[in-house]
Order: sequence, then structure tokens, then C-alpha cells
Amino acid sequence: MDCRVRTHRFMMLYCGLYHSKIYLRSNASMLELYHFNNSVCSQKARMTLFEKGLDWRSHEVNLFISEQYDPKYLKLNPKGYVPALIHDGKAIRESTLICEYLDDIFPLPPLMPNGAAERVQVRLWSKTVDEGLFEGVTVFSFSAMFRDRMKKLSVEGRERRYRNVGDQVRRDRHNSVFEHGVDSPYVSRAVATYEIAFKAMEETLVGGSNWLVDDMFSLAEVNLAPFIARLEYLTLLDLWIDERPAIGSWWQRVKDRSSYQAEISDPLTSEEIEEMEVSGARIKPRVEEMRAEYLAWA
Amino acid sequence: MDCRVRTHRFMMLYCGLYHSKIYLRSNASMLELYHFNNSVCSQKARMTLFEKGLDWRSHEVNLFISEQYDPKYLKLNPKGYVPALIHDGKAIRESTLICEYLDDIFPLPPLMPNGAAERVQVRLWSKTVDEGLFEGVTVFSFSAMFRDRMKKLSVEGRERRYRNVGDQVRRDRHNSVFEHGVDSPYVSRAVATYEIAFKAMEETLVGGSNWLVDDMFSLAEVNLAPFIARLEYLTLLDLWIDERPAIGSWWQRVKDRSSYQAEISDPLTSEEIEEMEVSGARIKPRVEEMRAEYLAWA
Repeated sequence: MDCRVRTHRFMMLYCGLYHSKIYLRSNASMLELYHFNNSVCSQKARMTLFEKGLDWRSHEVNLFISEQYDPKYLKLNPKGYVPALIHDGKAIRESTLICEYLDDIFPLPPLMPNGAAERVQVRLWSKTVDEGLFEGVTVFSFSAMFRDRMKKLSVEGRERRYRNVGDQVRRDRHNSVFEHGVDSPYVSRAVATYEIAFKAMEETLVGGSNWLVDDMFSLAEVNLAPFIARLEYLTLLDLWIDERPAIGSWWQRVKDRSSYQAEISDPLTSEEIEEMEVSGARIKPRVEEMRAEYLAWA
Repeated sequence: MDCRVRTHRFMMLYCGLYHSKIYLRSNASMLELYHFNNSVCSQKARMTLFEKGLDWRSHEVNLFISEQYDPKYLKLNPKGYVPALIHDGKAIRESTLICEYLDDIFPLPPLMPNGAAERVQVRLWSKTVDEGLFEGVTVFSFSAMFRDRMKKLSVEGRERRYRNVGDQVRRDRHNSVFEHGVDSPYVSRAVATYEIAFKAMEETLVGGSNWLVDDMFSLAEVNLAPFIARLEYLTLLDLWIDERPAIGSWWQRVKDRSSYQAEISDPLTSEEIEEMEVSGARIKPRVEEMRAEYLAWA
């Protein structure tokens, strides 16, 4: 696994904090992140680290050669997911919890609102991601491009991944999308899930707010950004936002953040971008049909 | 919908707080809970209210006559789930977030640990419930008993429930369990999910801790209790805990809590208990087989 320290230009903006408790705390112990460049959940954690201006040591876990199922990595995250954060010798896992943990430990600049009810709103967006959009992006990405990569693995090699972590739920989903591609029922459920989420976002933003919760850039944006970015790279995003201008303006604001550029767009190679565009365009007509079918049903 | 105020004996224990800010805050605004007696997520919220010694106004949402899909209720929770909490005129939804919100607003007695890493541990248990055990208990309960109730509804009546809230994911799950009962693949996934969760619980408790996180009764216990109680009422729990004595002792400690008795066991009628036992026993042999199949695969 590749290992390096990432220092952020952004840190310079926080020179006012150099002598503060927060700066001392952030340097008192090394932060280490096990992650993969174009993994949506890794992007969430990295955006948070960038927004906080924190230095961290990088350990790459290459998902394309199944390093997330390596027994050493499974000690950090028995589910075999990236990212995992190490801080003060403790492993913190689940990207949503890593982001909340970082905001808890390094409160400035804040990424959670002051009010308890507003914090619930942020967490509702996190749940929308964790209990729907995450699976959705997985099956879109898988049916569009990773499926072709998987065909190069042996049946036993594919099976072992899920047996390793005992994850029958993921295996069933994987097998369905591997076998049926974009026609898997998991893909049509993903379409429905994104439709519901974008509808809720439009209702939230249409009143003129710049951001989803409490008019501040928060973990709601951080949690959603990689999942919407992936749809955009797959050329699918316009299906949902062309007719929703409030989301379009909000999305441009998100993309204008330095943290988005530093941790999502800039690190992608032109080959990665091309692979997402070409393969996404292949499934797009069927995804559009599925959206129409969902709207006719709902 | 039935409406009444619940006052807790437990409140008396907190007479020391009568003149404190916390007491004033808790009485400054009425708490209202929309819930259903034997709904697992409602039980979580009620246990938290009880642990905090809070008064609240009760609104029953009868799931057996689909009151959760009533347009008035859908304004409080567009997903058509109970519970929903009203506080300071704001609707808070999702039981996990309701419990965290109550702990945030009414910090004594605490149900979240002091340390940030320990708070992550509690939230990992919440995620285990929200991203697996919740669906698991739904399909166990449904395949065992609610399926028979559903057969009395028209096809259109059943379909309308999910179309109302646009929830294709829930509809697909519902249809699979309605059609195939305990042989639905959702049931075998639920078995796998519970197996993974109980294995993690045993690993956590086997060192001798009384409680799952930071040796304190926390929202980890509150979140899990109704889901384990339901398995026990369905006579399925011994499949997982007979060979795991550390969980058995922990479970007895949970059941000894006044909040468990007041909000889970005491309110159940003997008819409700009998229905769970009789119908659970019907699916038990197949669930036991599925567990063996899972263990042979994993």
C-alpha cells in the first residue's frame, strides 16, 4: 500500500489557529487514512480533512486488486470497506462516522450546525446516503463499468470477496448486477432512490438557501458530493437535475469548493474520467427508461 | 389517533433537577410522540424518553390500519414510518436521530459516552440496526405473522401503501416476503445479518463488560433492545445466543432496566405475546436451517 503524507495548501488559511488549542490538538497525534482515490466514501473523509485543514498520512487501499479484503486491512474494518481513519491509535470506520468524528475532535471550521434540530437535518442527509444512495452509486458504477473488470476474475475469486467478510447481502446484490447488468432490479431501485433524494433536495433548496441545512456548508454537502459527482461523471446527473434548477445552482457551489476540487475532481486521471463517461453513457438510455417507469408508478 | 400524556414514575428520581435548567427546558415545551405500541422503532424512542424521565404526549399511529400512510401523518414523516417526535414545533424523524436528539437536548442522565471515539462506537451499533437489523426484524415479523394479516387486504390496498411514499425498495421486499414467506431471499439475508451482529456483540462483551460501549448503558443498548426483544418473542433468539453466554448475561441486564419493562414488555397484551410466539415458532425450523446454510458458506 502506498504511503505518503498529505499537506494542504488550505492549512495556510488557518495560520490564525497555529497557536491555538485546536492546532496543538491536530498536531498532537498523527491522523492516518486508509482510502482509495476514486472511492466515493473515501472522498467524503478526504473532503472533511481538507475542510478542516488537517495533515494526514495516506495509505492507499487498491480496490481493484481487492486490498480491502486483505486480512491486515480487515482488522481495521471487518466489513472490507474504505476508508478507515486511525487517530490516537484508535481505528474509526464508516465514512459518515469518520466525518462526524473529525468535526467533533477538530471543531473549527464547523461542519455541523449549532442547533440540535439542524444537526438532525444533517444526519437525515447522511442516512439518505448510507441507506440508499451508497448502494445506488455502487450498482450504477458496477453495472456501467466495474462489471467488465469483474469478468476477468474467476468465479471463485469473486465469491471469496464476500465470503471473507460473511456479507451475503453484498454478494446477492453483486451477483444480480454482475449477471443482469443494468437490468438488475437493484438498478431500478437505485433509480427510485435517487429520484426521491433529488426531489427532497429540490424542496429544501427551492426557497433560495445556498446550502441544504442552516444555510451553511456542512457535512450534508460533504456526504452527498461524491455521490452526485459520480452520477455526473457517469453522464447520468442531467436526468435528475435538468428540470431542477435549484439543485443545479447548489451543485455548482459545491463544485466551487476547494475541498471538492482537491479531493474529488483534481486527483482523477483523464483515463478514469473517460472510463466513467464512456461506460455511463452505455447504461444511460436504460436508466432514463427506468426513471420514466418509476415516475409512472409512484 | 389516541392521544394522552404519559408521566413517568421515573421522573421522581430526578427531583434534584426540578429547579435546574434541564428541568425548565424539558417543561418549557411539550414533547409529542407519534408511535405504535409494538413497533420496534417506537420502542427505542420511548425507552429514551423513559430513561431521561421526560413527560410526553402520546399519539397512537395504528400500523394495522395503515395510519402511517395517512396524508396528515406523511407531513410529519414522508417515508410513512413511526415514530415521529414533535418538539418546539419541529418534527424530528428517524428513531435513531430522535434518540440522539433527546440525548443532545436533555443531557442527563447521559446515554452517550464522553469520548468522541466511544460515541463513534455507539453510532456503529446504531448503523448495525439501521442498515441491517431493522430490515431483518421486518422480514422475520412479516414472514411469521403480518403476512397473514396482509392477506386480508386487496392487492390494490397493499400496493397503494408503497406507491403513496414512492418506496420501490420497500415494495419489492414486501412483495418477496408476501409471496415466498420464510423462503424469501430477504429472510436468509436477515439471518446472515443477525449472525454477523451477534458475533460482533459477543466479541465486544466477552471481555467482561457490562455494556457494549464504555461500560455504560447507552443508546447502543436502547437501539438494539427492541430488535432483540422481537426475536425473543418470536422464539428465535436462542438460535443466536444459546452458545454465546456473554450476550445472554448482557441481555438479562437490558431486560432488568425499568425502561425496558415500561416501554417494551409491560405494554404488550397476552394476545400480542401469544401471536408472536405461535407465529415465530412456525418459521423457526426454516430459520435454523438458513443459519446453518449461512455458517457453511461464510
